[in-house]
Amino acid sequence: MTKSPFLMLFSCLLIGFKLLAADPSGAEASGAEASDAEPLASDGNDGYRLWLNYEPVRNASVKSEYLKYAAFIGRPASGEIMQSASQELQLGLGKLLGKSVNITNSFAGKSGGIVFKIETSADTAQPVEGYRIQLSGGNMIISSKSEQGILYGTFALLRHMQMQLPVKGLNLASSPRVRYRMLNHWDNPDGTIERGYAGQSLWKWYELPERVDPRYADYARANASLGINGTVLNNVNASARFMSQEYIVKVAAVANVMRKYGIKTYLSVYFAAPKTLGGLKTSDPLDPQVRAWWKEKVAQIYKEIPDFGGFLVKANSEGEPGPQDYGRIHADGANMLAEAFKPYDGIVIWRAFVYKADPNADRFKAAHEEFVPLDGKFDPKVIVQVKNGPIDFQPREPFSPLFGNMPKTPLGIEFQITQEYLGFATHAVYEAPIFEECLDSDTYVNGAGSTVAKIVDGSLHGYERTLIAGVANTGNSRNWTGHPLAQANWYAFGRLSWDHQLTSEQIAREWIALTLTQNPKASGHITALMLRSREIYVDYNTPLGLSRPWMGVHFAPEPWQNKGSRPDWTAVYYHRADSIGLGFDRTASGSNALAQYRPEVQKQWNNPDQTPLPYLLWFHHVRWDKKLSTGRTLWEELCTRFYTGADSVVWMQQQWDLAKPSLDPQIYTDVAERLKVQRREAIWWRDAWVLYLQTFTKQPVPAGFEPPKQTLEEVKKSVNVYLMR
Amino acid sequence: MTKSPFLMLFSCLLIGFKLLAADPSGAEASGAEASDAEPLASDGNDGYRLWLNYEPVRNASVKSEYLKYAAFIGRPASGEIMQSASQELQLGLGKLLGKSVNITNSFAGKSGGIVFKIETSADTAQPVEGYRIQLSGGNMIISSKSEQGILYGTFALLRHMQMQLPVKGLNLASSPRVRYRMLNHWDNPDGTIERGYAGQSLWKWYELPERVDPRYADYARANASLGINGTVLNNVNASARFMSQEYIVKVAAVANVMRKYGIKTYLSVYFAAPKTLGGLKTSDPLDPQVRAWWKEKVAQIYKEIPDFGGFLVKANSEGEPGPQDYGRIHADGANMLAEAFKPYDGIVIWRAFVYKADPNADRFKAAHEEFVPLDGKFDPKVIVQVKNGPIDFQPREPFSPLFGNMPKTPLGIEFQITQEYLGFATHAVYEAPIFEECLDSDTYVNGAGSTVAKIVDGSLHGYERTLIAGVANTGNSRNWTGHPLAQANWYAFGRLSWDHQLTSEQIAREWIALTLTQNPKASGHITALMLRSREIYVDYNTPLGLSRPWMGVHFAPEPWQNKGSRPDWTAVYYHRADSIGLGFDRTASGSNALAQYRPEVQKQWNNPDQTPLPYLLWFHHVRWDKKLSTGRTLWEELCTRFYTGADSVVWMQQQWDLAKPSLDPQIYTDVAERLKVQRREAIWWRDAWVLYLQTFTKQPVPAGFEPPKQTLEEVKKSVNVYLMR
Repeated sequence: MTKSPFLMLFSCLLIGFKLLAADPSGAEASGAEASDAEPLASDGNDGYRLWLNYEPVRNASVKSEYLKYAAFIGRPASGEIMQSASQELQLGLGKLLGKSVNITNSFAGKSGGIVFKIETSADTAQPVEGYRIQLSGGNMIISSKSEQGILYGTFALLRHMQMQLPVKGLNLASSPRVRYRMLNHWDNPDGTIERGYAGQSLWKWYELPERVDPRYADYARANASLGINGTVLNNVNASARFMSQEYIVKVAAVANVMRKYGIKTYLSVYFAAPKTLGGLKTSDPLDPQVRAWWKEKVAQIYKEIPDFGGFLVKANSEGEPGPQDYGRIHADGANMLAEAFKPYDGIVIWRAFVYKADPNADRFKAAHEEFVPLDGKFDPKVIVQVKNGPIDFQPREPFSPLFGNMPKTPLGIEFQITQEYLGFATHAVYEAPIFEECLDSDTYVNGAGSTVAKIVDGSLHGYERTLIAGVANTGNSRNWTGHPLAQANWYAFGRLSWDHQLTSEQIAREWIALTLTQNPKASGHITALMLRSREIYVDYNTPLGLSRPWMGVHFAPEPWQNKGSRPDWTAVYYHRADSIGLGFDRTASGSNALAQYRPEVQKQWNNPDQTPLPYLLWFHHVRWDKKLSTGRTLWEELCTRFYTGADSVVWMQQQWDLAKPSLDPQIYTDVAERLKVQRREAIWWRDAWVLYLQTFTKQPVPAGFEPPKQTLEEVKKSVNVYLMR
Repeated sequence: MTKSPFLMLFSCLLIGFKLLAADPSGAEASGAEASDAEPLASDGNDGYRLWLNYEPVRNASVKSEYLKYAAFIGRPASGEIMQSASQELQLGLGKLLGKSVNITNSFAGKSGGIVFKIETSADTAQPVEGYRIQLSGGNMIISSKSEQGILYGTFALLRHMQMQLPVKGLNLASSPRVRYRMLNHWDNPDGTIERGYAGQSLWKWYELPERVDPRYADYARANASLGINGTVLNNVNASARFMSQEYIVKVAAVANVMRKYGIKTYLSVYFAAPKTLGGLKTSDPLDPQVRAWWKEKVAQIYKEIPDFGGFLVKANSEGEPGPQDYGRIHADGANMLAEAFKPYDGIVIWRAFVYKADPNADRFKAAHEEFVPLDGKFDPKVIVQVKNGPIDFQPREPFSPLFGNMPKTPLGIEFQITQEYLGFATHAVYEAPIFEECLDSDTYVNGAGSTVAKIVDGSLHGYERTLIAGVANTGNSRNWTGHPLAQANWYAFGRLSWDHQLTSEQIAREWIALTLTQNPKASGHITALMLRSREIYVDYNTPLGLSRPWMGVHFAPEPWQNKGSRPDWTAVYYHRADSIGLGFDRTASGSNALAQYRPEVQKQWNNPDQTPLPYLLWFHHVRWDKKLSTGRTLWEELCTRFYTGADSVVWMQQQWDLAKPSLDPQIYTDVAERLKVQRREAIWWRDAWVLYLQTFTKQPVPAGFEPPKQTLEEVKKSVNVYLMR
């Protein structure tokens, strides 16, 4: 059922070819043999279903337990979200238990079913979106104060069943720790996706509003199953198109689908729209006409989308227009928009991703310098969205010094799920450890234990509005994310946005069980691969705290790039390699960016002898011959990382192959082939760095490592291919 | 089997919602009812299989006839193309007859099977790629001089069976009339497709060569089933990347898949590559180093791709580099490349799509002026590829005056399948009539009957190498072409490239039977819709010989555009509207482009009173108040076309709805929704033209037609939305 006939036929062909390959003469290949392809094909999984496979429950005793509650689905009169929940449950039970279960609203006194129950506040102190699942009166009760909570509970139960966990003593209860859990799509109206590596945008603007792609509903189901409750449809480098009536009705058609799954629709806005679209003379946020234009615009949107979520704004950042174009401050712009949202539930999300093109400044410090002075100046409807690190989604960054330093301003966190700096769709990098590492970082703003997570979830500064956003890695590729393992990054982001206490390993094991296999050995191999994948990537890409060895493309190694339209858009700006050493001095003797952190944090990082190696070159310019804690010099340590990192991809391939017997053949092959690309490119990275840094160190590759087979010029030539039109 | 579980689940949801909608209280919706969704879902067709559905043969008597030949597939020891053929046949028989049929090479003396037979030239005068299917000795024999012919015969037989045509007296024989039948992909290395409206490129350059998407094979199967034997993978606005070793090995991995289906792989080349990629001082085609570079480059390609097809070149056209940059002529460039292909089977395809930016010139005449003087100057390995019309793939154009005027130079024809000027993926326009109209046009170069087809197939001028190319409309959308009905354009192009004697109606009925339905009434309605669709589009878009009312986007109406980076990139350049009248005078009193045609052709078009209305404004500037053969003035006739064209979309919707009972629900809905978009946009076009032309005519909309509800300014505003970033 799960594979397109075409792909199925193709599998048959493959089998056929295999048989024939075994016998080049083309001798007797029996149809019986060839038709062995069939079961393979029908088992086939093209990845479209993500973690909602709903494979039949094989464990007979577990299945019989569940069947005790499969007599009916009890759903009180309800709105469309609870209807989605009941339909999803009916779907899931049908697949998992092979039983078609009725949905009924006349279940009083009946038992043996699964019953939805809307709680009154009297029942529980549980937050509105939370849910509880328990056994009572011979029924399984999914209860919540909201239909949305019931939907989340339904997906939690289906997850429980997919993992074949026992019903006995079932008592699941959970609530989200963060209020706004959303994806940011960097999708353009022409269908391209900025930094997207999984095909074209899911949103077909030329077809909307009349043509509503069924895939929109599957997108909503996948997100709702993780507790994601918001989606920003368009790129932060926003087109003014989306503020036109033509596009508002298109957006409304998408919002109508999202609404059924408790997802609110948001838009990124082009700050100069009053001028370019509205025909006004200015977009000055203090201009009355401009303020009136936005008010009217927001009203126009709510007319079409009554539950519209709000605006996301990238202003005065990387050339985008903003309030500073008129001598105003960020708060002026944000508060103007917030005022327009006053009559409605919507909010304004204002990005703190700003940095001036100043060769003498340290980009690391820019956001802190611009935004900390604004603390307390923002309207309560405004959330400031801060990237996890101070620069830009590098494979490893220290947490942004903004966290903890704006107690009067709700700070949301922005992670990047799409692998802009993580090898696009050909490198397997499990990102949960990146998210977890940042959320668990201690800012010390209110003493020890003042983690970024506690700032983001509002528990530290009592923010009313809390936000976690992830830049989506979805596209119209059949499997949504290009690399099959990249589905786990979408999954991990969603699960962590609901509960940041979950560990990377828990999430990995869960995702593997739902998506790939429940075989314990295979799961162990894949978990190991996933958990180590990020460190392996860092080792061959940017070890010891290196960052941004890229120019525009963010794909091929370019540590030598020293010419750019701005100094901070070159690679040398970041690594500062010279004849003496390597790294960016951000201590008092350098840019002193460290001063933006609390003393306890500074203490961890301001002494090169004590700075943990993963952060060393983030904060220090280190001599090539300096002996590190590993007993190796910086140069030796770098080479060790580059080489072991690249070689570890072979280990990843081994782990994947060990899991092969338990994997769907199509997904096995897909990942196996991508790992081959990753292996080749990891060596490319290693050689690029080693050969380039040798021009400074003049030292050979340490004993035990084979020097690169290619010259620096050859590597540059192969890189330049990817920079051509 | 045919629909992804996700979509299937979604269908269930839909049903669920329908039931609930019927009963907002959410009262009893029985699982039984809800599970009525199942059959619907399992019938589902997401369009991925194109015309290779292989639905089970329902006609029992026909089925039993076929079963008489389903005992085995007899395949002599063979290469991989015949293996593809046998696998495809095994696949098809399995689906069509529900029988798993053995492939064997020991079939001597056996009967009751389907047998492949390679003919010696003694057997028949049939051309190499031709095939014959006949009954003999109790077997069904598919014979050809080549494995490729056997593959084409196999697909012909499967087509025959899919249409449930009788076996009795089966005697199918066919040969291609043109030697090179190819698709041109305007796909860029970044995955975007120039003028593509069906998602991202099929070619995943970042994943290649290690990751070979199974979809490549399905692409090859679909093309081989039509007889297409070549594909140019990259945009004619070519990146030099493809000449690098990095990309050549990627291309080789794709070519390895294409080869199994008899398809040769070609590349578009960037003429300045010797400079930009090779680091030479020049790309002058007469420079020895440049000539050596290309020779070496071609050798390098053949090392990886032994059956490489050749180069496609866009030179000195729309800013692309070319020989004229060095004071050389097109032939110098083409012949230099041909020389590099001397040792190999490959060819050079040189595009004649050229026009200088001269406000006083007529773009219509440019290609003829530049290329006719070069007749006889090209190397025999060169084919000059000419667009069907003199301008650029307009909804209707007269045939290019180049056809017939270069008897010593093989002229290939280039059609555009992708709907650049035909409403992207939201307008249903069946293109076979466009192709057929051009191929059947009489050039009179050797007297009456000197059709474009006879020039293209070489019969008129005895070209050794003949070519038909189509600019592909494929992308990574699940259904390949975005608009489900656009699959028919790919199909029609392929069938006509094999046999230009087929009629648009034959091809439409065939495609509908293979793809949508075999119900005679439904097929009739859809055939009617398809056959009229092009005239309907022309009526609301560019009636009476209007052309190119676009600027850059080629989507929204812009007849008023009078500013462009070049005069011939504005809209007013083409329609020449003024207070007196409308149209481009190409008679002796005007640009005299007509003089490029033979006298017999001139006679048809040089007298405004006798020029057929579809071509009127192509050749004449006509007074607004001139009475036309219809009895209406030009203005009245224009309005009549704009209004009846837009209203005819409603008729298309009716035809589609009449076919609904026989259609897959998913495909029915997809097209029905797109027709709604088309209806809205058709009115947009109508109003834009009528309101704009009224600024010249100062006349009201004729009685019987309701004047536009919107003003010209309002239309312009809505259009400008689509021109924004």
